Amino acid sequence: MSKARQGNYFEDFRLGQVIAHATPRTVTAGDVALYTALYGSRFAVQSSDAFAKAIGYAAAPIDDLLVFHIVFGKTVPDISLNAVANLGYAECRFLKPVFPGDTLSSTSEVIGLKENSNKQSGVVYVRTTGRDQTGAAVLDYVRWVMVKKRDEAAVAPAPHVPTLKAALEPADLGGALPPLTLEGYDTALSGNPARWDDYEIGEKIDHLDAMTLEEAEHQLATRLYQNTAKVHFNLHEQAQGRFKRRLIYGGHIISLARALSFNGLENAFHVAAINAGRHVSPAFAGDTVYAWSEVLDKQPLPGRDDAGALRLRLIATKDKPCTSFPYKAGDQYDPAVLLDLDYWAVLPR
Amino acid sequence: MSKARQGNYFEDFRLGQVIAHATPRTVTAGDVALYTALYGSRFAVQSSDAFAKAIGYAAAPIDDLLVFHIVFGKTVPDISLNAVANLGYAECRFLKPVFPGDTLSSTSEVIGLKENSNKQSGVVYVRTTGRDQTGAAVLDYVRWVMVKKRDEAAVAPAPHVPTLKAALEPADLGGALPPLTLEGYDTALSGNPARWDDYEIGEKIDHLDAMTLEEAEHQLATRLYQNTAKVHFNLHEQAQGRFKRRLIYGGHIISLARALSFNGLENAFHVAAINAGRHVSPAFAGDTVYAWSEVLDKQPLPGRDDAGALRLRLIATKDKPCTSFPYKAGDQYDPAVLLDLDYWAVLPR
Amino acid sequence: MSKARQGNYFEDFRLGQVIAHATPRTVTAGDVALYTALYGSRFAVQSSDAFAKAIGYAAAPIDDLLVFHIVFGKTVPDISLNAVANLGYAECRFLKPVFPGDTLSSTSEVIGLKENSNKQSGVVYVRTTGRDQTGAAVLDYVRWVMVKKRDEAAVAPAPHVPTLKAALEPADLGGALPPLTLEGYDTALSGNPARWDDYEIGEKIDHLDAMTLEEAEHQLATRLYQNTAKVHFNLHEQAQGRFKRRLIYGGHIISLARALSFNGLENAFHVAAINAGRHVSPAFAGDTVYAWSEVLDKQPLPGRDDAGALRLRLIATKDKPCTSFPYKAGDQYDPAVLLDLDYWAVLPR
Repeated sequence: MSKARQGNYFEDFRLGQVIAHATPRTVTAGDVALYTALYGSRFAVQSSDAFAKAIGYAAAPIDDLLVFHIVFGKTVPDISLNAVANLGYAECRFLKPVFPGDTLSSTSEVIGLKENSNKQSGVVYVRTTGRDQTGAAVLDYVRWVMVKKRDEAAVAPAPHVPTLKAALEPADLGGALPPLTLEGYDTALSGNPARWDDYEIGEKIDHLDAMTLEEAEHQLATRLYQNTAKVHFNLHEQAQGRFKRRLIYGGHIISLARALSFNGLENAFHVAAINAGRHVSPAFAGDTVYAWSEVLDKQPLPGRDDAGALRLRLIATKDKPCTSFPYKAGDQYDPAVLLDLDYWAVLPR
Repeated sequence: MSKARQGNYFEDFRLGQVIAHATPRTVTAGDVALYTALYGSRFAVQSSDAFAKAIGYAAAPIDDLLVFHIVFGKTVPDISLNAVANLGYAECRFLKPVFPGDTLSSTSEVIGLKENSNKQSGVVYVRTTGRDQTGAAVLDYVRWVMVKKRDEAAVAPAPHVPTLKAALEPADLGGALPPLTLEGYDTALSGNPARWDDYEIGEKIDHLDAMTLEEAEHQLATRLYQNTAKVHFNLHEQAQGRFKRRLIYGGHIISLARALSFNGLENAFHVAAINAGRHVSPAFAGDTVYAWSEVLDKQPLPGRDDAGALRLRLIATKDKPCTSFPYKAGDQYDPAVLLDLDYWAVLPR
Repeated sequence: MSKARQGNYFEDFRLGQVIAHATPRTVTAGDVALYTALYGSRFAVQSSDAFAKAIGYAAAPIDDLLVFHIVFGKTVPDISLNAVANLGYAECRFLKPVFPGDTLSSTSEVIGLKENSNKQSGVVYVRTTGRDQTGAAVLDYVRWVMVKKRDEAAVAPAPHVPTLKAALEPADLGGALPPLTLEGYDTALSGNPARWDDYEIGEKIDHLDAMTLEEAEHQLATRLYQNTAKVHFNLHEQAQGRFKRRLIYGGHIISLARALSFNGLENAFHVAAINAGRHVSPAFAGDTVYAWSEVLDKQPLPGRDDAGALRLRLIATKDKPCTSFPYKAGDQYDPAVLLDLDYWAVLPR
């Protein structure tokens, strides 16, 4: 029996099981520089120690999505190495800011299991928590993924599907946001005078910019997150498969779309929560990614008046400018849509 | 009216206008590592804290051109998003060394405006200053760029073209150079015994080495500088344009040529000033860049005997070795020339 | 006579000659992040300050192979710029852990010279030592390389071939390994419960994972190591040569194979020595690299019971999964084999 691990199959999971994932990771200024080089993000708070300190942070915090990818990457060898499809995310909350020097690790609890009727696979629901070196939670989220069975004859547990919130509540937001010193928030440096109060529900923003995807870039990103999903790295195997190409990690598209969204959302510097995320189509090297956003909701943060939250739909498209806000025709997504992300961003008031 | 910004057009600029550019940026050891990986620069002072301290720096300073690119990148959304062409640089002085941990921001003053006779565009001259977190200037330079008009009927201001120096004077140099402890300068470690005194006016050096450009590399570089010019990133749009390809940021070629120039200029560790720079031809992925230099002038630094300055012409070519120093035939550049850069480098005496 | 250097030729070397190589290099968290992005390595000790401290390190040490590449890179301009072929490595010992902030430099002593019978080239043997800023050796190794003669008529020195160990002894290992606090070694975080005692001589492990090589990635890596060998960077010249393509630095394959070997060797966190290394075939962009390992020997470390050493053969293949452990048929390597590396790894007991 080889010591190399092939990952878990559907019948290996048990409801309530808690899995401690391998490879704790100290996040550093090196990761921050690479993240900037990979996506070109320009939010002032994450880019500048001086700006971050002026508004109440100890230093520039690590980009929320970089934290997400690092926490997520650790779960892949245990949860989704034998996945057929990544089905969704929910209830993702950012709970504590992360700074260079912090060490992140991840655990996942199996909170749902449901075999598919074909007996070849089943859906596994996990709640993953990322913690820093003090044991404090910095992030938690629910993810569900369709995982192959090793043995079709294996008996499945009784189905259990967890109840998940369609969206997080304002009271769930802001744990990772220190009290802001608003007089230190310089909108000339942040790039836009528009604050929370200036956005309206229903407002749509075409972010105008676009980036073309490269193999070397998504591989560098995905390895930086220590995510080991084979489909992103192995052309020899993928060439024999359905797509003939390496598939790009969905999180790479999320980060790219978020960086593009800077143009028009310059002060939406903090992702406080992700309500739902869907990778509508696969993305490949050579695709050019455009993005647009819609304000779905607008809520103050309970008990504080320094910041407010916008619930945003962030759509990324492929080879299609977003002037006309491509989304859905009826139930069908526009074929150009790559990503449909529903999240809460925080802006200063 | 969308909150996403389309950039300024010629008629949006006013003489004397001062623009504070967005996104302050803390430069870190992560940026230094990426810069090394992108260009392979080997100057001992910027590569080694121990070497830098031995000659009088507090630590290894950030490469001068990395400082330039970061300061420059911030100006793109305000100055050149609607540029037809980047026409030139002048009077670029490096004023204070930058170290990891410093936060850079940029402002530009409009110092000249001249509408083109076709009324479709005009030339905008700006003097840009990069400052650190203390407010001290680390760099300033003049750049002029041809910018489209939004509306051809818009009335242009009276033309004003600033007077610019053909080259900076020795008295303009050395602000970013601490007093050097020459006995700490180890030429075995720096790679060449040749100091300032050993170079002669008219001397030409073929740098021998060459590097082939890659899409992923120039995109990583240009995003690292938070430079948002669309032509470098959007293949979908560029494929419909004149070049059919992404155009590489000119500063990427400058940094690459400078790194290649190490072979023969090992002790020319500090770029004290850029007198002029011309991107003679566009560069694309797949091009192999070679470089050579000529010593145009040689001057002591006023009031100090630790270092001297060489005025250098740095030529980068494409797919052509520089054994025969390709440059111009009459007024015409050799078709292989990509870059013609005129700068002052400082060497120990 | 140009100041740019063309590198040494066979007749330039003298037995006993000591060469101090240029460009000392401070290793930082930026290099660590890039190394992770380039190879996706997941050994807990190098990834996490918290994990490293819990077992007795002052902080997460720099990956041994990153130290090797940086020390090696410095030698290229002096030793192998005119190499026909890199023939082998031996007696490579890791002597002291390296941490972010340490500055590395290299010297080489010529320990052997043997002209080839065709008088066109000769073999140069050097023992290279990497030192930190205190002058302490962190690494030494022997390398031999076939170097062209500038002038076939040049008289060669008397041949001298050094005697080299086929493999290092257990007593040569462990200099870079602090006393381990085994109760701090958490195998849930490291990724596998298997410790030194759990491996057996003759055991073979297919590491399952694979990565496809990209031009931008190997160029970034090789420049990060400030390795200037032209064959890795200059497509214009290579296109006219034997392979028509850029050749990938052999060390890039070693690091990639080592990172892949994590799956099944999760606790083999420290490379204590390299006995021998052979680049069986050249690697190019587009190749997909797989890897497997065999335990060749198993030895305690003299005088300590916290860790033991496994002598491992690490084989990397190209476009061929390692299910059947491809290696040799008689004396002939399987045509898919890229790398045959013989090294000692250290694991906790």
